[in-house]
Amino acid sequence: MPQNMRILLKSTPVGPPGPEHFEAAHCDMPVATENQALVETLYLSLDPYMRGQISGRHLSGAVKPGDTMRGEAVSRVISSNMKGLKAGDLIAAHTGWQSHAVISDGVFRLLGFDALPPSLALGVLGMPGLTAYAGLKRLGEPKAGDRLLVSSAAGTVGATVGQIARLMGCETIGIAGGPQKYAWVTDTAKFAACIDYKNEKIRDGLMRLCPPRPPLGGVDIYFDNVGGDVLLAAMENMALHARVILCGLMTQYNTDSIPAGPPPGLIIRARATVRGMVVYDHEDMRAEAIDKIAAWIKSGDLVYREDMTIGLEHAGATFARLMRGETFGKVIVKVAN
Amino acid sequence: MPQNMRILLKSTPVGPPGPEHFEAAHCDMPVATENQALVETLYLSLDPYMRGQISGRHLSGAVKPGDTMRGEAVSRVISSNMKGLKAGDLIAAHTGWQSHAVISDGVFRLLGFDALPPSLALGVLGMPGLTAYAGLKRLGEPKAGDRLLVSSAAGTVGATVGQIARLMGCETIGIAGGPQKYAWVTDTAKFAACIDYKNEKIRDGLMRLCPPRPPLGGVDIYFDNVGGDVLLAAMENMALHARVILCGLMTQYNTDSIPAGPPPGLIIRARATVRGMVVYDHEDMRAEAIDKIAAWIKSGDLVYREDMTIGLEHAGATFARLMRGETFGKVIVKVAN
Repeated sequence: MPQNMRILLKSTPVGPPGPEHFEAAHCDMPVATENQALVETLYLSLDPYMRGQISGRHLSGAVKPGDTMRGEAVSRVISSNMKGLKAGDLIAAHTGWQSHAVISDGVFRLLGFDALPPSLALGVLGMPGLTAYAGLKRLGEPKAGDRLLVSSAAGTVGATVGQIARLMGCETIGIAGGPQKYAWVTDTAKFAACIDYKNEKIRDGLMRLCPPRPPLGGVDIYFDNVGGDVLLAAMENMALHARVILCGLMTQYNTDSIPAGPPPGLIIRARATVRGMVVYDHEDMRAEAIDKIAAWIKSGDLVYREDMTIGLEHAGATFARLMRGETFGKVIVKVAN
Repeated sequence: MPQNMRILLKSTPVGPPGPEHFEAAHCDMPVATENQALVETLYLSLDPYMRGQISGRHLSGAVKPGDTMRGEAVSRVISSNMKGLKAGDLIAAHTGWQSHAVISDGVFRLLGFDALPPSLALGVLGMPGLTAYAGLKRLGEPKAGDRLLVSSAAGTVGATVGQIARLMGCETIGIAGGPQKYAWVTDTAKFAACIDYKNEKIRDGLMRLCPPRPPLGGVDIYFDNVGGDVLLAAMENMALHARVILCGLMTQYNTDSIPAGPPPGLIIRARATVRGMVVYDHEDMRAEAIDKIAAWIKSGDLVYREDMTIGLEHAGATFARLMRGETFGKVIVKVAN
């Protein structure tokens, strides 16, 4: 009889997580009752916010040892007791790190991207895409001619922010680590320029690519996915009336300490606006964001990259790779065909 | 023959300034040529931003040893070669710490407050009043029912922010040091409540007066005049979509180190907006601000307090008192009758 495979948190990591912090468990298949459907996971999304859940620091609550890891997945309906949903339909839902799940009304999105891969519902056409679109447009207030700097520029949020900003007429500068990512950001994603922080000090790169407009710096919009010293360097180089979108803190997800932030005097001097971005607040923009991004993908104006691992059993090791900054593109585990 | 008295910076202080860092000098009276006027200083404004000028850290440039201290004053015209300006007129201009000055066209404001004291042009009806009005209204986005917290609540900016917020329907909580200021903030300026930071830990006061709205805190708007630990405590208690106006950094003006700021994760968690306030950007609101504040003073809805010292020779000692947090109200030196 087929079983449901789950990946549980085995123990809470201190510092970067490793495969040893996760373990597989097998249990009976879940059963769909009235107004429910049984689904089979095809693609599981791995995201940095999960590190916060493991530490108990995320808005959405904690994942404790013995719990099934949470996360969003694209799944295929196997059998349905729900009106409007039938076997073979594709859905996206927060079903977690498991091979099968039961979904109820109101907790899933039915997918219908004509001619685009369903896994994109976890990336540019999903939460990261909405994060990029709403964060840039609503919190960044971009204008043509603005100079936009974005960290993790080879990640889905960063790459999408930069490309949308370019399409809005901004000069886009990325920050990414290593020659492969550097090349992809500049050549494939068509950023105006990129700082490879593994090859050049961030501050040197900023002087080169975001030259100051004395007495202030040359960054009009900074979209931050990392925090830490990169955030500080970017904020030291803000232009007058700069906007900073704080979206992620990759540099501190693996630590239990909470580092201080940039000096408030930097914000005063630049008359800057610094805003916190949480994607949950921007569901009202989802349809607009997904429609626009899908159209840009089809027209060739916007590219994406996926980092796909095959096999749910590798989810822990892949997550560890993500948290070491070694993945390249939207991190997906392909669970079934 | 009458002479012009000036107060010069004698030496650059390390840490809090004292009277020994200033010295008086006497020189010939300045002479007004074509399109100029000779004025006699009546009231000189002392403000914390001057500490930044002495350190060479202020936007407006440095004051070096041997330079006349800069600052805004209210003066009476003695003789005028300017059209529209006659002997006896009162003006406000950045004439510095001196008994007499020559002004040219375009660098002064002609005063005409009917029935209000001219010194108010340096306080509630001047730069601090505009700072409070524009900072609160434009950057704070106050709505009736919001809970507003403001530091230096017995200072002109803080007291004016709190009173305008109350008039806009906000619940106003002040932070001030010592029983006198506490009593003035609550009884005279009619804040809803006040935290006396010399009598109670800021965090305890916040729990008492700004009770959290789990999972977040209870401060909708924080108008910051001090930075440091008070800023951190306020930002740890932000409500969802809080606004923070960074206006002053009293806690660090006397130091040469630049302390880090609150962790960026606080801003993300609260989806907060943090903005830097520099009054120069808001000249377009001056007429509106002054009209409204003057009307509120006349109707008794808004009060102010002045801390007046008589004699220009005491400007240095008074400035030292200001920078030790020992003044109470708008700090003014009365130079002549």
